[in-house]
Amino acid sequence: MSSSSKPANDANETSNLMWGGRFASGPAAIMEEINASIDFDRALYTQDIDGSIAHATMLEATGIISSGDRDAIIAGLTAIRGEIEAGTFTFSRALEDIHMNIEARLAETIGPAAGRLHTARSRNDQVALDFRLWVKTELKKTESALKTLIGTFVDRAEEHAGTVMPGFTHLQTAQPVTFGHHLMAYAEMFGRDLSRVRDALERLDECPLGAAALAGTGFPIDRHMTAEALGFREPTRNSIDTVSDRDFALDFLSASSICATHLSRLAEEIVIWSTPQFGFVTLSDAFSTGSSIMPQKKNPDAAELVRAKTGRINGALIALSTVMKGLPLAYSKDMQEDKEQVFDAAKSLELALAAMTGMVADLTVNKAAMKKAAGSGYSIATDLADWLVRELGLPFREAHHVTGRAVALASERGVGLEKLTLDDLRSIHEGITDDVFSVLSVTKSVASRTSFGGTAPREVRRQVRYWRKRLKKMG
Amino acid sequence: MSSSSKPANDANETSNLMWGGRFASGPAAIMEEINASIDFDRALYTQDIDGSIAHATMLEATGIISSGDRDAIIAGLTAIRGEIEAGTFTFSRALEDIHMNIEARLAETIGPAAGRLHTARSRNDQVALDFRLWVKTELKKTESALKTLIGTFVDRAEEHAGTVMPGFTHLQTAQPVTFGHHLMAYAEMFGRDLSRVRDALERLDECPLGAAALAGTGFPIDRHMTAEALGFREPTRNSIDTVSDRDFALDFLSASSICATHLSRLAEEIVIWSTPQFGFVTLSDAFSTGSSIMPQKKNPDAAELVRAKTGRINGALIALSTVMKGLPLAYSKDMQEDKEQVFDAAKSLELALAAMTGMVADLTVNKAAMKKAAGSGYSIATDLADWLVRELGLPFREAHHVTGRAVALASERGVGLEKLTLDDLRSIHEGITDDVFSVLSVTKSVASRTSFGGTAPREVRRQVRYWRKRLKKMG
Amino acid sequence: MSSSSKPANDANETSNLMWGGRFASGPAAIMEEINASIDFDRALYTQDIDGSIAHATMLEATGIISSGDRDAIIAGLTAIRGEIEAGTFTFSRALEDIHMNIEARLAETIGPAAGRLHTARSRNDQVALDFRLWVKTELKKTESALKTLIGTFVDRAEEHAGTVMPGFTHLQTAQPVTFGHHLMAYAEMFGRDLSRVRDALERLDECPLGAAALAGTGFPIDRHMTAEALGFREPTRNSIDTVSDRDFALDFLSASSICATHLSRLAEEIVIWSTPQFGFVTLSDAFSTGSSIMPQKKNPDAAELVRAKTGRINGALIALSTVMKGLPLAYSKDMQEDKEQVFDAAKSLELALAAMTGMVADLTVNKAAMKKAAGSGYSIATDLADWLVRELGLPFREAHHVTGRAVALASERGVGLEKLTLDDLRSIHEGITDDVFSVLSVTKSVASRTSFGGTAPREVRRQVRYWRKRLKKMG
Amino acid sequence: MSSSSKPANDANETSNLMWGGRFASGPAAIMEEINASIDFDRALYTQDIDGSIAHATMLEATGIISSGDRDAIIAGLTAIRGEIEAGTFTFSRALEDIHMNIEARLAETIGPAAGRLHTARSRNDQVALDFRLWVKTELKKTESALKTLIGTFVDRAEEHAGTVMPGFTHLQTAQPVTFGHHLMAYAEMFGRDLSRVRDALERLDECPLGAAALAGTGFPIDRHMTAEALGFREPTRNSIDTVSDRDFALDFLSASSICATHLSRLAEEIVIWSTPQFGFVTLSDAFSTGSSIMPQKKNPDAAELVRAKTGRINGALIALSTVMKGLPLAYSKDMQEDKEQVFDAAKSLELALAAMTGMVADLTVNKAAMKKAAGSGYSIATDLADWLVRELGLPFREAHHVTGRAVALASERGVGLEKLTLDDLRSIHEGITDDVFSVLSVTKSVASRTSFGGTAPREVRRQVRYWRKRLKKMG
Repeated sequence: MSSSSKPANDANETSNLMWGGRFASGPAAIMEEINASIDFDRALYTQDIDGSIAHATMLEATGIISSGDRDAIIAGLTAIRGEIEAGTFTFSRALEDIHMNIEARLAETIGPAAGRLHTARSRNDQVALDFRLWVKTELKKTESALKTLIGTFVDRAEEHAGTVMPGFTHLQTAQPVTFGHHLMAYAEMFGRDLSRVRDALERLDECPLGAAALAGTGFPIDRHMTAEALGFREPTRNSIDTVSDRDFALDFLSASSICATHLSRLAEEIVIWSTPQFGFVTLSDAFSTGSSIMPQKKNPDAAELVRAKTGRINGALIALSTVMKGLPLAYSKDMQEDKEQVFDAAKSLELALAAMTGMVADLTVNKAAMKKAAGSGYSIATDLADWLVRELGLPFREAHHVTGRAVALASERGVGLEKLTLDDLRSIHEGITDDVFSVLSVTKSVASRTSFGGTAPREVRRQVRYWRKRLKKMG
Repeated sequence: MSSSSKPANDANETSNLMWGGRFASGPAAIMEEINASIDFDRALYTQDIDGSIAHATMLEATGIISSGDRDAIIAGLTAIRGEIEAGTFTFSRALEDIHMNIEARLAETIGPAAGRLHTARSRNDQVALDFRLWVKTELKKTESALKTLIGTFVDRAEEHAGTVMPGFTHLQTAQPVTFGHHLMAYAEMFGRDLSRVRDALERLDECPLGAAALAGTGFPIDRHMTAEALGFREPTRNSIDTVSDRDFALDFLSASSICATHLSRLAEEIVIWSTPQFGFVTLSDAFSTGSSIMPQKKNPDAAELVRAKTGRINGALIALSTVMKGLPLAYSKDMQEDKEQVFDAAKSLELALAAMTGMVADLTVNKAAMKKAAGSGYSIATDLADWLVRELGLPFREAHHVTGRAVALASERGVGLEKLTLDDLRSIHEGITDDVFSVLSVTKSVASRTSFGGTAPREVRRQVRYWRKRLKKMG
Repeated sequence: MSSSSKPANDANETSNLMWGGRFASGPAAIMEEINASIDFDRALYTQDIDGSIAHATMLEATGIISSGDRDAIIAGLTAIRGEIEAGTFTFSRALEDIHMNIEARLAETIGPAAGRLHTARSRNDQVALDFRLWVKTELKKTESALKTLIGTFVDRAEEHAGTVMPGFTHLQTAQPVTFGHHLMAYAEMFGRDLSRVRDALERLDECPLGAAALAGTGFPIDRHMTAEALGFREPTRNSIDTVSDRDFALDFLSASSICATHLSRLAEEIVIWSTPQFGFVTLSDAFSTGSSIMPQKKNPDAAELVRAKTGRINGALIALSTVMKGLPLAYSKDMQEDKEQVFDAAKSLELALAAMTGMVADLTVNKAAMKKAAGSGYSIATDLADWLVRELGLPFREAHHVTGRAVALASERGVGLEKLTLDDLRSIHEGITDDVFSVLSVTKSVASRTSFGGTAPREVRRQVRYWRKRLKKMG
Repeated sequence: MSSSSKPANDANETSNLMWGGRFASGPAAIMEEINASIDFDRALYTQDIDGSIAHATMLEATGIISSGDRDAIIAGLTAIRGEIEAGTFTFSRALEDIHMNIEARLAETIGPAAGRLHTARSRNDQVALDFRLWVKTELKKTESALKTLIGTFVDRAEEHAGTVMPGFTHLQTAQPVTFGHHLMAYAEMFGRDLSRVRDALERLDECPLGAAALAGTGFPIDRHMTAEALGFREPTRNSIDTVSDRDFALDFLSASSICATHLSRLAEEIVIWSTPQFGFVTLSDAFSTGSSIMPQKKNPDAAELVRAKTGRINGALIALSTVMKGLPLAYSKDMQEDKEQVFDAAKSLELALAAMTGMVADLTVNKAAMKKAAGSGYSIATDLADWLVRELGLPFREAHHVTGRAVALASERGVGLEKLTLDDLRSIHEGITDDVFSVLSVTKSVASRTSFGGTAPREVRRQVRYWRKRLKKMG
C-alpha cells in the first residue's frame, strides 16, 4: 500500500502557523472542539442516570449482574447526581460526552462494578434513550403551557364575548366581530397545537434501551421491564431503527414550528393594535419598554420578540431535517447535531408561550376605539345585503347591487349606512321597510351571526363553555 | 386631502417603456399575472362542485332557497363538471379563480338561481373547504401508498430474514445484521409516517363551510348537515379561525418532509450499495439508466431523484411556514400562495413513494457480497467480548481489552478472528475454551442477537408477523 | 452470485394492482414520470441551440469536423429553433430532456453529421452550459428590473422630499421623517440587491463547454473560442468542478431571497399604511381589488402577494441547498432538481419586482394624514432634548429628564409639546428661551436633521442626486 | 376610554400558580428572559468600546463636547475594556444589553461626562455598528481560513497530480481522473466562496454611526471622520436604512451556507472513501475516533460533523430570513434575534473549515486502491470511442456502438478492455490498428485529457500554478 500522508508529528510547527489563534495547538484542539458534546449534552445528566439505574435494575433481575453490583451502581449514580446538582462535578471535554463523564466518575467511585453497567448496552441506545426522555419531558411542559394559554384566551374571551371590534380581511375592515370571538380563534389554533403535541407524545412513547450498538444483544435482557420502569408504553420494535431514528425530535420541531407560527400571528396583531393609529390594546408595563424621554410611549417588545422566535424555530427544524437527509443507517456522528437545535427551540417556544400568556392575560382593551373602528368602512354593508336577500327574496347579486348604491349614497353624504333615512333607502329599492334598521348597527350585526361557530356573543359563550369542558376533561 | 398620485392614463406610454417585454401592457398585465390563481386552482374543480352541491342541498333543507333553485343549481353544476372533464370548459384568467369561473358559468347556464347559491357563503370559506377536501384526499392517497411500501418491506424482509450483511455505524462495518432486519427498520420509519398521516387526517376532519366571510352568518344554516354530506366528522368551531387557518396544509407538509427524509436515507443507501465497490444490490432496469457505451453500467437515477425530492418538499414546508408567519387574521391574500406548494409536494411525495416501492420490490440482492463484507473489519469482535463477559464473568472493560489483543493478533496475521486457534486465544486469556467458536461467525453472531427487536432471523420474522397483522388490522 | 430479484415480466399483473391509478402501467410509468425533465427543461431550448452552434463552429475551426458538417449542423439547428418557436416541434418524454429531443430531431433532419456534434461534449457540460446561460439572462433581467425600481423610488422620493410622516420604531411613532427619506431607504436596499446581482453575474461568467463528461477531452478543442462566442469572460478552470457545480443557481437564489425580503418589508408597510386606521396611502385600482358591495373598499392584493412571494423564494433556496448538501462529485442525477426551483423563483421575483414598481409609481400619498400622524405621540420630544443639550449644555440624561417632564405636562393638558407656553417650559427648566420654539414642529424637526444620510429635505435631495448619477453611470 | 386590564399587582399570587417553575416570579421573570440580550451580545464589547471611542473623538473634533470630556470618556472606556478582559466586570441582565452595561459602568466611573457620549447617537445606530464590525472581522477570518484551505488543496493536488482514481457520475465509475484534479475541483469551489466573502466585505464597508435613532441628527457631526477611524470605506447613505438593515448578516449567512454545502460534499466523499469497501483514504488519528475493541477501526467523526454543520448553517440563514420577512422600517425588536444565529453559524463555519483543512492536510491516500478502482467498470470505454472517432473518422454514434460491442466481449471474458487482442478488436471493427492500445489504460486515459481544465497531470499542474499565483496576489 503506497501512502502519502504527512506525518502528524513534524507538522506541529506548521500547525501553529496554519491554525493560528484559536486552534494554535493544531488538530487536537480542532477535534476536541468539533467532537466533544459535553458542553451541551450535560443537560441530559438526569435522563442518563435514570436510564442507567433502570438498566442496572433489569440486569440484576435477569441474572446478568449480581445484586451487589446493582446496589453499588445505583448508589454510585445517585451520588453522582448529587455532585452534579451541587455543582461539584468536574465535567471533562476529553471524555467527550455526558455518558462517558458519568461512566468515568462511576468507575472512580465504585470500581470494576461500573464496567458491568455497560453489559448489553451501547452509547448508541443510551443517547437515544436520554434524548428521547428529554424530549418527552419537554413535550409535557409544552402541553401544560398550551393549556394555560388556551385557558387564558377562554377567560379573556368570556370577558369580551360582547366587545365589538372590526373583523379584518386583507387588514381592511370587513365585518364587525367580537373580540371574544377573535380570541377564541386562537384557542382553536393552540388547541390544534395541543393535539399535535399529544400525538407526538404518543408516537415517541417507545423505549430505545436494549437496542445496543445497532443489532440488539445476545444477553437475556428484558426490554419490557426497562421500558416500564422508565415510563414508556413499550420498547421500540427494531434495534437498527432505534439507534438511527430522530423522528421524535423532528416531530417536536414540526409541532413547535406550527405553534410558533400561531404565536407570530397574534404577536403581529398586538404590534399593529398597539400603534397610536389603531389604539385597540395597551400592553402592560411588564411586557413593554418605555422611553425616558417620551413617558407615554410603550414599545411592544415582548410581542416583537415572540414574533421573531418563529424564525429561530423554523431554522431549527430545517437544520435537523438537513442533517438527517440522506443519512445511511444506523448511527452516524452527524446525529450529534440534533440536540442543540431541539434545546434551543424548546427554550424559545417555552419562553414565547409564557410571554404570550402573560401579554394576553394583562392586556388592556380599549373598547371604545375598537367599536368606533368596527363601524367604519361600511362594515355592515353585508348585513344590509343579507336583509335584502332574506326579507325581500332578492337574488344575491341584485342585493349586492342595491347595497352598493346605498353605500355610495352614504359615502357621498359622509355618513354611515345606519344614518340614511328610510326614504333614502326606498329611493334605491322600493321594497325596503323600517325593519331594515334592526340590522344596521355593529352590535346588531354581531348579534345576528348565530350560525355554529359565528361571532354572536351567545355563540362565543358557547365556544367558551366547550373549551372549558375540554380543558377540564384533559385534566 | 392632498394627493400626489400619477394619473394612470397618461402613464401608459411610459408604461410600455418601463415594463418592456412581458408586461408591456402595463399594470393590468402584471396584476393579472400575480393575482389570478386559475392556472393552478382549477385542480380544485371537483371539490368546488361537491361543496356547492352540499351547500345548495342544505340551503333548501333549511328553507333558505326553493327546491326548484336547488335542482337547477345541482343540474347546472353537474353539467359544468362534465364540461371540465370533457375539456370543453373555457377557463378565464379575468375571472381570477376556480370559484368565479364556475360561478360565472353557472349564471350563464341557469340564470338568477345561480346567485342564490352564494347565500350564506363567501369565497373565504369556499376556498378553505375546497383546499381542505383536496388535502384530505391526498392524505388518504399517501396513507395507501405508505401501506403498500411497508408491505413491500415486509415481503422482502421475510425473504431476507436470514441474509447476512454488515451493520454500519459511521458507514464503517460495526456488527453483522440481517438484510431483513435492515429493511424492517424502514418499515418502522414509514410506520411512523403512516401514524403522522392518520393524525393529520383526524385533525383536519372539520368542515369549514358556513364560516362565510369570517363572522358566520345570520341565515339559519345547518353546518352539521353540510359537514356530514361532505364526509367530515363535524363543522369547525370558530368562523374566524376557519378562514384564517392553513394548519392542515402545514400538517401535510410536515409529515411529507419527515417521510421524504426517510426516503432519502434509503435512497442514499441504494446509491452506495449499487457502487462497484459495495455491489450489495442491483436496481432493476426499470429504475436505472444505462450507457450506450458501457452496457454493463447502471446509474441509480431513480434513487438519486427520490433523494433529491426531499429538498423540494422541505422547501415547500419552509415556503408556506414563511407565508403564514406573522399574518393577521382573518383572510389575507398571501394565503393564495398555499396551494402550489402543497400540490407540488404532494406530487413529489406520491412519485417518490411509488418509485421507492418499485425499487425495493425489484431490487436484486447480492447475498455473497453482503456476507463477505459482513465478515470484514472484525465485525464479530463484540461477540467475542460478550462471550468473555457472559461465560468467564469478565468485567466489560477487561473483556474489551482481551478482545482488542485478539483482533490485533488476527490483524497481524491477516486473518479473521475465527481463524485464530484456541491456543492463540488462550495465549491472550487462559480461561478461553473451545466454546468460544460457537459465537465466532457472522451467521452465529446474528443468530445470537435475540433480544426484542434484535437482528436474529427469528426476531426479524416476529417483526414481519407483527407488521403483517398491523397492516391487516388497518384494512 | 445469488440473486433474489422478482422477474420484471410476471410482475406486470401484480403491478396493476400495486400501483393502481396513475401508475397502472407499472415501473415504466413511474420512471418516466420521475426521470423525464422535458416538461420543464424545454425552457432551455434556445440556450441549447446557441451552445451547439458555438460548439460546431469551434469543432470546425479546430479541424475536428468538416465545414460541410458544421454547415449542416447549424442549418439543422436553426430550423429546429424555428419549429420550436412556431409550436410545431413534437417534444417526447421518452427522449427525456431537451438535449436528446433536439439531438434526435437533428439526426432525423441532417443524418450522420448530427452525430459529429457530440464530439468532445457530453450532456453533463451541455446542461451546465444551458442552465448557466439561462441564469445569466435572468440575472440581467433582474438587474434591469432593479434599476427601474430604484429609479421609481428616486422619482417619488424627489416628489416627497419634503413630505413629513412619522418615523417608526417598533411600529410606534418615534421621530418625524420625510416620506422621500423613507423611500430612499428602499433605494439603498435594492441598490445592495443590484450589487449582489452584479457580483453573481461576475462569478458565473465562465463557460462550462468542453468539460465533457467530467474529465475534459483528448480532442484538440478550443475552450476559449466557445467561451467568447457565447459571451463568457473565460472558460471554467476545472472540468470536474464544472459539471458538479450549481453555485450560480445558489447565488441567484440567495440574492433573490434577500431581495424578496426587502420587497416583503415594503409590501407589509403598504398593507399597514392602506388600513383605514393609518390611511397614509391609497393603491391605484390597478393593484387592488374591490368589493361589489362596499364600493369604497380596496384590498391591497398585490402588496399581499408580493409579501407572500418571499416564502416561495426562500423555499426554493432551501430546496436547492438541501439537494446539493452532501452530494459526491461529479454529476449526480439529484442535480436535475435544480431547474424548477430556479425557474419558479425567477418568475416570482420578476413578477414581484414589476408589481412593486407599479405600486410605488401609482401610489396616492395622503400627505395630510401622514403629517398629522407625524405630530402625534410627542415625536418631537428628542428635538427638545437635543435643543437643551445644544443650547443650554445640559448633559444628555438631564436633558432627557427635563423633556420627560415637559411631555408629561403637555400630555396632562392633552396638547402637543409645541402648544406649551414659554412659561410652562420655564417652570420645568429656567434656562429655556423663546428660541426653543424654533425646533418644536415636525417640519422644523425634519429640516434640522442635516447630518449625512439624515432626513432633512435637502439631504434627501442629495441622496436623490447621488442615485440618479449612480444609475446613469451604470447605463 | 373603557379599559379592562387585570391590575398587575394583585395578579402576583395567581402568577405563581400560572407560571410555576422557571417563571414563578411572573411577568418580570419572563420579560427579563425574553428581552435581555446581554447573555450573548457581550461578545460585542470590544466593538462597542471602539465605536464609542471613535464617536467621542469626533464629538470633540467637531466641537460638540470638550476635550476634557473626550479624555475622560476614552480613559473610562479603556478601563472598562480592561475589566471585561480581566473578568472583573459584572454584567447585569437588568441593564439588558452590552451598550447599557458599558454605559452604566462609565457613568459610575467618570460621572456626568459619560452622558455626553450619547449626544447624536442612539442604541439603534450603536448596535448596527457593533454587529457590523463583528461580522466584518468574521468575514476576514473566513477569508483567511479559505485561503489556508485552498492552499492545502493546492499542495496535496500537486503531490497527487498523477495519482489516478475513478471519476464518478451517479457514484458509478465513469472515467479515470487524477486525485489532484479532483482536489482542484474543491479549490475552485472554495475559490468562489472566497469571492463571495470578499464581495460581502465590500458591500458592508459602510459605517452606520451617526444614523442616530433613525432620522439622523441636528448636531454637526462628521460621519466621514468616524467611518474612517473605524476602518470603513465611507458612511452609510440613508439613516432609516441604516438602522433597519441586516443585509450584511444575511450576506454572511448566504455565503456561509454555500461554503458549508461545499464542505459537506467533500465530507461525504471522505466518509465514503474511508469505508472498507472503497478504502481510498485513511483519516489521521487526529480526525477520527477508534474503538477499544476493534483497534483497526476508524470512524470518520470529523467528516461526519463537518457534513452535519451544513444543516445548522442553513437553519441560521432561514431563521434570520424569516425574522426579517415583512418587518416594517425602521428598527423593530425582532432584529435582536439576528446575533445568535450569526454567532453560531460563524463558529460552526470556522470550525468546519479548520477541521476540513486538517483532514485534507493529514489524509493518507491509498494510491493502489484508487488505481485499481479506476480501471474497473470499463472506465476507459470512452477513450476507445474517442480513438475510433479521431483516428478512423467514425461518427459518434457508430463509435459508441463499436465500443459497446468491445465492452460486451471483454465483459464476457471477464477481463478489461486493454486485455482484448488486436484480433478481438478487429473482429468488431476492421479498421482498428495497434495504435489503439496507446489509449487503453487508465494512465494513458488521464494523460490524454489535455483540454483546458482537463484531468491530464500537466493540466492539473497548470491549475496548481494558477491558484498559487492567485493566492499570492491576494496576499
